[in-house]
Amino acid sequence: MKMKYSGYKGKILRINLTTKKTSTMEITDEFARKYLGGNGFSARFIFDMVDPRIDAFDPTNVVSMMTGPFQGINIPTAGKYHMATKSPLTNGFFDSISGGHMGAEIKYAGYDGFLITGRSDKPVYIFVDDDNVEIRSAEKIWGRLTSETQEMIKEEIGDPKICVSAIGPAGENRVRYACVITEYRAAGRGGVGAVMGSKNLKAVAVRGSGTNEVADPEKFEEWMKWFNEEVKKVPALASGLPTYGTPVLVSSINNMFGAMGTRNHQTEFFEGWEGISGETLKKNYWDKDTACPACPIACSKVFSDKSGKWKGAISEGPEYETIYSLGSMCGISDAGAVIKADSLCDEYGLDTVSYGVVVAFMMECYQRRLISKKMTDGVEFKFGNDDAMVGFVEKTAKRIGFGDLMAEGTLRAARIIGGNSERFAIQVKGLEIPGHSARALRGMALGYATATRGGSHHDPRPTGEYAGASDRKAVEGKAAWVIGTMQMTTIGDSLVNCHFLERLLGFTLTQKYVDMINPVTGFGYTYNELVDVAERILDLERAFNVRTGIRRKDDTLPRRFLEEPIPEGPSKGMHTDEATLNRMLDEFYELKGWDKRTGIPTKEKLLRMGLEDVAVVLEKL
Amino acid sequence: MKMKYSGYKGKILRINLTTKKTSTMEITDEFARKYLGGNGFSARFIFDMVDPRIDAFDPTNVVSMMTGPFQGINIPTAGKYHMATKSPLTNGFFDSISGGHMGAEIKYAGYDGFLITGRSDKPVYIFVDDDNVEIRSAEKIWGRLTSETQEMIKEEIGDPKICVSAIGPAGENRVRYACVITEYRAAGRGGVGAVMGSKNLKAVAVRGSGTNEVADPEKFEEWMKWFNEEVKKVPALASGLPTYGTPVLVSSINNMFGAMGTRNHQTEFFEGWEGISGETLKKNYWDKDTACPACPIACSKVFSDKSGKWKGAISEGPEYETIYSLGSMCGISDAGAVIKADSLCDEYGLDTVSYGVVVAFMMECYQRRLISKKMTDGVEFKFGNDDAMVGFVEKTAKRIGFGDLMAEGTLRAARIIGGNSERFAIQVKGLEIPGHSARALRGMALGYATATRGGSHHDPRPTGEYAGASDRKAVEGKAAWVIGTMQMTTIGDSLVNCHFLERLLGFTLTQKYVDMINPVTGFGYTYNELVDVAERILDLERAFNVRTGIRRKDDTLPRRFLEEPIPEGPSKGMHTDEATLNRMLDEFYELKGWDKRTGIPTKEKLLRMGLEDVAVVLEKL
Repeated sequence: MKMKYSGYKGKILRINLTTKKTSTMEITDEFARKYLGGNGFSARFIFDMVDPRIDAFDPTNVVSMMTGPFQGINIPTAGKYHMATKSPLTNGFFDSISGGHMGAEIKYAGYDGFLITGRSDKPVYIFVDDDNVEIRSAEKIWGRLTSETQEMIKEEIGDPKICVSAIGPAGENRVRYACVITEYRAAGRGGVGAVMGSKNLKAVAVRGSGTNEVADPEKFEEWMKWFNEEVKKVPALASGLPTYGTPVLVSSINNMFGAMGTRNHQTEFFEGWEGISGETLKKNYWDKDTACPACPIACSKVFSDKSGKWKGAISEGPEYETIYSLGSMCGISDAGAVIKADSLCDEYGLDTVSYGVVVAFMMECYQRRLISKKMTDGVEFKFGNDDAMVGFVEKTAKRIGFGDLMAEGTLRAARIIGGNSERFAIQVKGLEIPGHSARALRGMALGYATATRGGSHHDPRPTGEYAGASDRKAVEGKAAWVIGTMQMTTIGDSLVNCHFLERLLGFTLTQKYVDMINPVTGFGYTYNELVDVAERILDLERAFNVRTGIRRKDDTLPRRFLEEPIPEGPSKGMHTDEATLNRMLDEFYELKGWDKRTGIPTKEKLLRMGLEDVAVVLEKL
Repeated sequence: MKMKYSGYKGKILRINLTTKKTSTMEITDEFARKYLGGNGFSARFIFDMVDPRIDAFDPTNVVSMMTGPFQGINIPTAGKYHMATKSPLTNGFFDSISGGHMGAEIKYAGYDGFLITGRSDKPVYIFVDDDNVEIRSAEKIWGRLTSETQEMIKEEIGDPKICVSAIGPAGENRVRYACVITEYRAAGRGGVGAVMGSKNLKAVAVRGSGTNEVADPEKFEEWMKWFNEEVKKVPALASGLPTYGTPVLVSSINNMFGAMGTRNHQTEFFEGWEGISGETLKKNYWDKDTACPACPIACSKVFSDKSGKWKGAISEGPEYETIYSLGSMCGISDAGAVIKADSLCDEYGLDTVSYGVVVAFMMECYQRRLISKKMTDGVEFKFGNDDAMVGFVEKTAKRIGFGDLMAEGTLRAARIIGGNSERFAIQVKGLEIPGHSARALRGMALGYATATRGGSHHDPRPTGEYAGASDRKAVEGKAAWVIGTMQMTTIGDSLVNCHFLERLLGFTLTQKYVDMINPVTGFGYTYNELVDVAERILDLERAFNVRTGIRRKDDTLPRRFLEEPIPEGPSKGMHTDEATLNRMLDEFYELKGWDKRTGIPTKEKLLRMGLEDVAVVLEKL
C-alpha cells in the first residue's frame, strides 16, 4: 500500500524463528504519524506482542529491529538503526540505537523494520535480500567473535558490502548485558544481544536495492544547507568532537565538574585522568578518524597502543563512557588497557559500560573483603589491576569461573554477594550507570531514577547541564527540564538519530526538531503534536514497565548516591538526598500526568495521548 | 536454640552456590506457629528473599527444600518433602511435594529445611551429612538420567542408603516443567528441576543421624491408633488405592463422570479407556506394590509391559494423572506406551502431566494444520501416535529439534504457533491442567482459575466433588467450598503430608486436622487459628504473585472450557461460562478478603492475618 507520508516503506517484516515462517505487516499513515518510527514503533509493538510477565529469554520475547523516517536519505547523524526487546537486565522495555548503515539497508530492502520472535532449535542467521528472506544455518559461525562473524557471513553470501549485525560469545551465553555489533558499532546496554542469543540467532544480514524518499525535497535541501552551516558554529561539533571524539569530555568532566566516577564512585575525581584524556589519546594513541554514514562530525576514532604495556591493542573507540567505566571506575589510568578491553568487549559482544561498572563493583567488594581470591579464580581484584579488568572480558563472555557471576550484572551480583553490597551497586533498575554523575548533575539524579531504561544517559541527557542551559544544582524546575530532555531523546530514538544533534537543535525538545521532521515526512506536525508523540511513546514504555511491576518505589538511586556526598573536588559536598529526590519525583509525576503515589500513568493522561487501549489494560492492574 | 514446640529442629541451612558459603538461620517458635512448615515456610522465605520481577533462572532465585513438623516421626502419609521456587512456567510462587524419605533425612540431619541460592560456575551436587555440608563436583554425572545419578552419588559417598534428590537432562536443559526425582518420586509440575539446572545443581544428597520428636507421645499414640482403625473403614484407602493405585480412578472418572480429558479436551469421554484402566493395569501389567515410608495405603505400583508393543517397559507408576495426560489426552489406549513414556519422563526428569498435555496440544495443532511435518522433524503428530508421544520425551528433555519448543510448555508454544491456538492450550497461568475436569466439576473451574500455582489439582481438590460432599454442578456456595479445599491443601503442604488424608479427615479443612497437629507440635491450635494459618500462607502466595503482575484478569480458564460445553457422555452439556465464572469469582474474592476489581488481598485482610509488612509492600504497588 502506498503511503501518504514519506520516509516509510509501509511494511514490517515478521520472522518466527521457531516455525521458520515469515510474513509482512502493513504500517498505516496514522500509525506512522502517531509513533514516528524506531523507539515509538518498538514501544507499540512490544507493548502489544510481549507478555510483560515473561522472562527475557522466553521464546515469545520479541527482538525489534527498526528504522525511522530518516534512514536511507543521507541526512547527517541518522546513519543508525534501532533495536528493542524486553531486557534481561532490567526486565523492562529496552531500546538501543547503534551506528552503521544497517538502518539504510533495511529501508532499501523495502521495510521499516523487523520483528523477530520464537527460537530456532539450531544456531541460525537471517538474510534479508529485498523480498527474499532466508533463515540460514549459523552452526559454523557459532562461537565466533563479532568481526569474524561479519566476515564469514559476507564471504558466504559473496558480498563484502552487505550489512551484518551480529552477536559475540557474550550474546550466545546470555550475558545479561551482551550487545549487538554492526561493523564496530554497538547496540548496547540492556542485553539485546543476550535475547538474540537466547533465540539461537547469531546475526542479521541485510541488503536492499531500493531507496527512501523525502516528502519535500526542496525544503529538505534548505534544511541540509542550514544544518551544514550551523554545525560549523558549534565548537563541540565543529572542533571538539571531530578532533578528539567523545574522550574530549574526560578533562572537563573530571577537572571542571569533578564528576567522573572513580573507583566505583568512592570519589568523582580521578587523579590519573591525564593517562586516559582525549588529549593524551589524540597525541599518543590516535590512528585515524571514522564516521557513521553521511555524518560530518566524524566523532569516531581508531586508537592503538603503540609502545605501552598493551602494545598492539587497537580499537575503534574507546568512547568517553568506556573510558569512565574501564578506566576511572576501575582506577586504571593506562589508556592502552582501556583500548585493549574495549576491543575485546566489541569482539566478544559485551556492553563496555556495564562490564566496566561490574569490574569496579567487584573491585570494591574485594576491597571490603566481601569476596576473596578463592571466589575470583585466584585473581587479585584490586583497583588499578588492569590484568583483571582486561582478562575477565573473555571469561565473562563465556561465563567461565567468576565470569559467570560477572555476566549477571551488578544488581544480581550484589544480591548474591550480600553484605550490604547493593548499597554501592552503581545501577538503577538493574542497568549500570554511565559516566555522568548522578551527584554532580541534579537532572541526571532525577533522570536516572525515572528513566524507562534505568541507569541510562540516553533517556535524560546531561549535555544541557554541562553547558549551563539548566543549572546543575537547581531543584526547582528540574522535573520540567528532565522531561524535556527525555522527550527529545525519545523523538531522536524514533527518528533513529544521533543525540549530538541536541547541541544544534537545543538541549531539549524544540521547534527545530519539528522543522527537521516535516520536510522529510510531510506530517506537518505542530510543536505540540510532536510533544504528544514523545509523551505517548514514553507513556507506552512506562505502561509496559508498570505491567512488569515497576512503580514509584523503583524510581530511585543507589544508596551511595542518596547518602554519601561527593567527598572531594569541584563538586565536593554535592548529592541528591532522598527527601530532595522525592520532591523532584512529586513534581515529575505531576507534570507527566502519572499518579504520584504509584507512578502509574493516569487514565486521563493516557486518553489524552490517544492510548485508550492502554488505559483499559492498566485499569485491570 | 531449644524450641518450645516440637516437630522442629529450629534451624534452616542456607547455601549460596555462587560464593560457596553456607550458614544457618534460626526458626523461632513464633515463626513455626505462624507458618507451620513446608508450604508456609517457603511462602514466607520466597516472599522475603526473591525479587518477584526476576526471571526464574536468575541466580538470585531460591530453591527451597523444606519439611514440616511431621517428617521423621513415622506418621503415616508424611513420608514426603517439599520444594518451592519462583516457577519458570508460571513466573509465580510454586511449590511441590514429593514422596521419598528425604523429608525425614533433613530432620535427622538437624534442619527444618534448606534455602539454596546463587549459581555454581560448574555442575555440583550438595551433600549434607549432619553438620558437615559439602558442595561437590557433579561434572561426571552431568547429563545422566535420574536413576544413574542417584546410584553414582550413593556409590561416590559409599552409602547405598543415602537419600538423593536429583534432576535429569530436562532440568539441566531448563525445560520449563522439569521435575526433581527422589527414588521414583517426583517434585513435579512447575519446573523446580529447571531452576536447579539453572543453578548447575544436579542433586542434593542428605544423611542425618538425629531424630525428630513429638510434643505429646501419649496423645500421638492415641491418634495413630485412631488413624489405623479409621483407615480400614474408608473403601478407597482400605481397598481401591491399595489394590489398583490411583489408576482406579480411570473407569469412574471416564464412565461415571464423563470427565476424562480426551484428545486435548476435544471431548471428555475416552472410548479406549479400558486399555489404560486400573483394572487392566492390575490384571495385565502389575508387578508389585510399593509405598512411601510409613504409609499403610501403599498406593504405588510397579507396572511393566509383558507382551505388548512396548514389551520390557517398566515403571513405578503411572499414576492416574499420567494415564490422563499420556493416555486419553493423546488418544492412546495402550498402557504399555504410557508405562514406557512414564518411565522415560522419570529418568529424564520431566513432569508427566505437563509433558502429556504439551504432546496433546501439538497433536491438535497438527490436526488443525497449524503445524506440519516440516516443523515436527518429520514426525506425524496424529492423535494416537504413541511413537511420537514416547519418542519426544528424550528430545524434549534435551531440547532437540521440535523438542525445543515442546520444552517451553503449552502457553508459550501457543504464542509462538499463533493461529488462535491459545484457545485450546489446556493451561492456567502457564501450568498445564491435570485430569480433573474444569467442565464437569464446578469447583475445579473456580479452583484452577484462582489457584496460586495455576492449573493444579493440589490447590483446590476434586475429591469431595467426586464423592458428592459438594454438588459438582452447584454454583451457589461453591466459592466457600473451594476455599475450604485450598485451606486444607495448604495445611497439608505445610505439614508436608499426602492429600489422601482428606478422605479420612474430611474433604475440606476440619477440626480433625487440628487434632492431628496438636499432639505433634504442642501448639494447642484452635480450629480458627489453623484456618488463619492457611489463609495467611495463601495470602502470602497471592501477594508474591500480585507483585509479579497477577491480577483478577489472570484468574481465568482456557477459552475452550469457557465456551465449549462437553460434547458427549455423562457430563454432556456441562461447562462454566464466563458469566458464571465471574459470579463465582466475585464471591471468592469477597470471602477471601481480596479486592474484587483487582484480586489483590486487601489491607484489612493482611492485617488480620498478621502480615503488616506484606500490606506495606502491596501498598506501594
